[in-house]
Amino acid sequence: MSASSHSNASSPVTVTLTPANFDALRRRIDASNLAVPADTRFTGGVVADVYTGEFVKGVDVLVKDGLVAAVVPEGIGEARETVDLQGKTLLPAFIDAHVHIESAMLVPERFAELVVPHGTGAVVADPHEIANVLGTVGLDFMLEASEGLPLDIRFQLPSCVPATPFEHAGAVLDAAALEPYWEKKRVLGLGEVMNIPGVLGHDSDLAAKLLHAQKRSRPIDGHAPGILHEARSATAAAGITTDHESSSLEEMRESLARGMKVIIREGSAAKNLRTLIQGVTPRNSRRCMFCSDDVNPADVERLGHMEKHLRMAVEAGVDPMTAVQMATLNAAEHFGLPGGAIAPGKPADFAVVEDVTTFRVAETWHRGELVAKDGKLTKPIRTPIQPEAVLSRVKLQPVGLETFRLPVPSGEANVIGIVPHEIVTKAEVRTVKTDAEGNFDAQLNPGLVKLAVLERHHALGTVGLGILSGYVAAGALMEGAVATTIAHDSHNIVCAGGSDADMLAAVRALEALGGGMVVVKRGEVVASLALPAGGLMSFEPADAVARGVAAVHRAAEEAFRLGEGLEPVMTLAFLALPVIPELRLTDLGLFDVRAWTHVGTDRGAK
Amino acid sequence: MSASSHSNASSPVTVTLTPANFDALRRRIDASNLAVPADTRFTGGVVADVYTGEFVKGVDVLVKDGLVAAVVPEGIGEARETVDLQGKTLLPAFIDAHVHIESAMLVPERFAELVVPHGTGAVVADPHEIANVLGTVGLDFMLEASEGLPLDIRFQLPSCVPATPFEHAGAVLDAAALEPYWEKKRVLGLGEVMNIPGVLGHDSDLAAKLLHAQKRSRPIDGHAPGILHEARSATAAAGITTDHESSSLEEMRESLARGMKVIIREGSAAKNLRTLIQGVTPRNSRRCMFCSDDVNPADVERLGHMEKHLRMAVEAGVDPMTAVQMATLNAAEHFGLPGGAIAPGKPADFAVVEDVTTFRVAETWHRGELVAKDGKLTKPIRTPIQPEAVLSRVKLQPVGLETFRLPVPSGEANVIGIVPHEIVTKAEVRTVKTDAEGNFDAQLNPGLVKLAVLERHHALGTVGLGILSGYVAAGALMEGAVATTIAHDSHNIVCAGGSDADMLAAVRALEALGGGMVVVKRGEVVASLALPAGGLMSFEPADAVARGVAAVHRAAEEAFRLGEGLEPVMTLAFLALPVIPELRLTDLGLFDVRAWTHVGTDRGAK
Repeated sequence: MSASSHSNASSPVTVTLTPANFDALRRRIDASNLAVPADTRFTGGVVADVYTGEFVKGVDVLVKDGLVAAVVPEGIGEARETVDLQGKTLLPAFIDAHVHIESAMLVPERFAELVVPHGTGAVVADPHEIANVLGTVGLDFMLEASEGLPLDIRFQLPSCVPATPFEHAGAVLDAAALEPYWEKKRVLGLGEVMNIPGVLGHDSDLAAKLLHAQKRSRPIDGHAPGILHEARSATAAAGITTDHESSSLEEMRESLARGMKVIIREGSAAKNLRTLIQGVTPRNSRRCMFCSDDVNPADVERLGHMEKHLRMAVEAGVDPMTAVQMATLNAAEHFGLPGGAIAPGKPADFAVVEDVTTFRVAETWHRGELVAKDGKLTKPIRTPIQPEAVLSRVKLQPVGLETFRLPVPSGEANVIGIVPHEIVTKAEVRTVKTDAEGNFDAQLNPGLVKLAVLERHHALGTVGLGILSGYVAAGALMEGAVATTIAHDSHNIVCAGGSDADMLAAVRALEALGGGMVVVKRGEVVASLALPAGGLMSFEPADAVARGVAAVHRAAEEAFRLGEGLEPVMTLAFLALPVIPELRLTDLGLFDVRAWTHVGTDRGAK
Repeated sequence: MSASSHSNASSPVTVTLTPANFDALRRRIDASNLAVPADTRFTGGVVADVYTGEFVKGVDVLVKDGLVAAVVPEGIGEARETVDLQGKTLLPAFIDAHVHIESAMLVPERFAELVVPHGTGAVVADPHEIANVLGTVGLDFMLEASEGLPLDIRFQLPSCVPATPFEHAGAVLDAAALEPYWEKKRVLGLGEVMNIPGVLGHDSDLAAKLLHAQKRSRPIDGHAPGILHEARSATAAAGITTDHESSSLEEMRESLARGMKVIIREGSAAKNLRTLIQGVTPRNSRRCMFCSDDVNPADVERLGHMEKHLRMAVEAGVDPMTAVQMATLNAAEHFGLPGGAIAPGKPADFAVVEDVTTFRVAETWHRGELVAKDGKLTKPIRTPIQPEAVLSRVKLQPVGLETFRLPVPSGEANVIGIVPHEIVTKAEVRTVKTDAEGNFDAQLNPGLVKLAVLERHHALGTVGLGILSGYVAAGALMEGAVATTIAHDSHNIVCAGGSDADMLAAVRALEALGGGMVVVKRGEVVASLALPAGGLMSFEPADAVARGVAAVHRAAEEAFRLGEGLEPVMTLAFLALPVIPELRLTDLGLFDVRAWTHVGTDRGAK
């Protein structure tokens, strides 16, 4: 795993050996020694040896008890069954080195359904979103829901719950709360450390989390977009061993030179591969991996999962073996995963691809079993677990029209301006029309809508109100509302609307759904998608969720004259993230990221 | 570290964080963040970045509290002192990935004196020899003697004590005996697993050792010369992660393809670098390292330590950066050592070399301190500890002339034939002359000498006797004896002599020395070297030991007409190793390695 020192290793470790341990070792040895027949022989294809860096012909792969027994010259050894690869290439199953499963709006079982047909064998997941909603209940849910799937889901413990002190999240996960999770099966290390000011400023709880990981020689993921030079050195000195947020070759080079490994990201939101792949060299490729970070189901179905990274890398001129190593061995070595290579004792997790240019996945094998063929699972994955504790997580104080009243007596307002195609916002100052009581009324202000963020985890009743420009087109009025329980990173309710009545209807609809996304037009819910698992994830299959999201977007686009370069729901989901410039809205009110403080909407107010 | 799965990680690990942990983290962060001045600035040289694979000019390395704070553009940041590298190249200190310190006949303090001036910063030591003499007492001694040196000595726990069941060793180290050592500071993993039949045959104690290492995700070193195909696959499946015994490109390729990393060995005895370096490619070099395995002090003083490997690799056409990565980063990553790179938070362990062709070492830095310059230590290392328990480990039953009586009534004998320049022996059958009582007498048999192996650890009184050809030249008589307590792997006394009287004198001299090597001529000790630490190591400085060994060899060569292609002492030291064909002698008698059984010297005896 990551280059950390055993002198840091904590003690005592008590190891108890069971007869089963001895039996498993004996069986592994006998199988590899060809002392017993294998279960399956893979023959007639090309086998990727990521260790020697060669695509090897004329060899068979023997599999027993779900593990690779040996790679042997054609015909050597015995096996009960034979699989003819018909000239295809046998690769180690792919590894997504950093992903937030919640962003796919799918529970782990459904996420596995989505990615397994694409040759993915393992993912390193950071359950940061659900943890912000449900804390340890969310972690327990993700661990249980990901158990026993044909996808090896490992976890990095969320390091930043809550994400910021400027809002109410659903939970607080301090170092003490994480302590019991360090030794859980499938927990690897510490998830992306986003609180760089906390690192540099010696935040003691964050330091404790870093030390807990380091003392156990566990990997720590970073997150330092734009942080350069000494600050980047300091994050490395703090023990952070990966960077998946580089978007420039300069950031990439700085991370590599500081000993951090670079996880090249290509997801639904952030797309860095085309730029960063230029920075991959024969000398540093061993320190590079691939990840998706955040993907939506429609993109995976359309473009693929990790095979997309491989295809794009090779298109960009990286040689196929280097690309394959980045998608398999490099991540396995860094995170200490069992797979990542086809060799004795390794799990028989394979991606069978048509060729190493398109990387079209014909079959996926997990622990020696065929689990997907031609894009379809060969047998259904168990139905998702649905524990009570993660359901209907929309807990509100009674809401009414008055909940949405936004006085702007001075008529001069701080307004959040959407920047087309970006998640940054512009801080605008607008003169706005108000009603008789001096409250902002969107119907009097074409091109503007009202924005509300309502705490929804513990019925605290905190509500932030603001004004948003760019959500509807210049001069347009919004006769309805859009609302969602996906609102990074605290995932309160965010709602944009043209009238308090429509906003109230939208919030009540979300409450009834138990979370998700809704579109209201003139008081009527015209489209909705339920995300009952914490208000973030669906228990439905990926394609149903993809269709649901598309329907919601279409309904919003038909109902309203929306602004340029935005996604009706996802754009809202980022308006509550108080770490991205310039103006944001949380349940505690309008927040000026530049000044790092809350401000009022009414500029007249002192 | 090695690619092992956290799902194997044992539990529970209890981590206690101390104020000192927090303070150290805070200081690391501040230093790298340039929030405080550094202690030392290294400037004016070329800096090896083993991560990006570049030799970088125009940068300074800032060091604080013994750690690298940052690599910065020239002149950036503050430092109390400045070191001008004057155009030399700053490399991470070298790592010897596998060494038996005892083979240098030096205790750890003296071994550090020997190698530190050669740029070595860390070694992975397998105390297999001293463990065979003293068991846990030997392990405790090596751990204590290696504490606080300007050399980072880490340990692999000896896996094969005793080495074989065909002799008496000084101790037995089973899995239970090793258990308390797993969590000791500076203990890494399991030392070279030589008992391949035991692996393939499911020896339960060996299996327990393998499982203890695997459950802790610790590295396991291999030792499988000549073992190929399915047997090699089985060792990989057993969890063995390195191979330092390959002497052919085929073995190397097989190890790499099975996921084992190859440690290219160039020592005083075995020299594999020139052959194996041909097998290093840009794709597999990340999985290759360097080691010395066994070195004698004279060779290190004459040829260097790891800089010799670097020089030879570059001579053979490997590019300098790849060679440097093999001697630093690759070993650090595999074994989870703190060093191996020059980056924030890494220990400031450096080798300053004149250039990257000769790799002549000008300076060695350890934890930010200059510890050697121009081949000399800058300050003395503490005097070696000399615990009672490791002293005078020659414990014999009373010996007399009768001890050496070897009856060969039939006059036809199985004779051990030395093969010039090899450690393998030839099984010869000779007609020999005996005295009136029918005992073998070397004086009646020119070209032959008597060989004796005496158990010396627990005064068991077991003595093996045999006849040796090739030790003296054809037709020559030996008027004396040579004896040593170095006798792989059990390190009993081995003695070759022309008369029982001389052999008795030699054995008694060894007893008086407390172990070492002696040359007796006509009853007189004409040369000797004391190795009081377990009969294997000296407390004296390396050059004194080198001179002592040379004097012993010279004396033997002057006293006797020795055979072709042998070292007077070292050749004897391997004659008791019952795993190398064809005939060997242990304290339990003559052993036929081909038949895997003891045999008599007298072929007439039934």
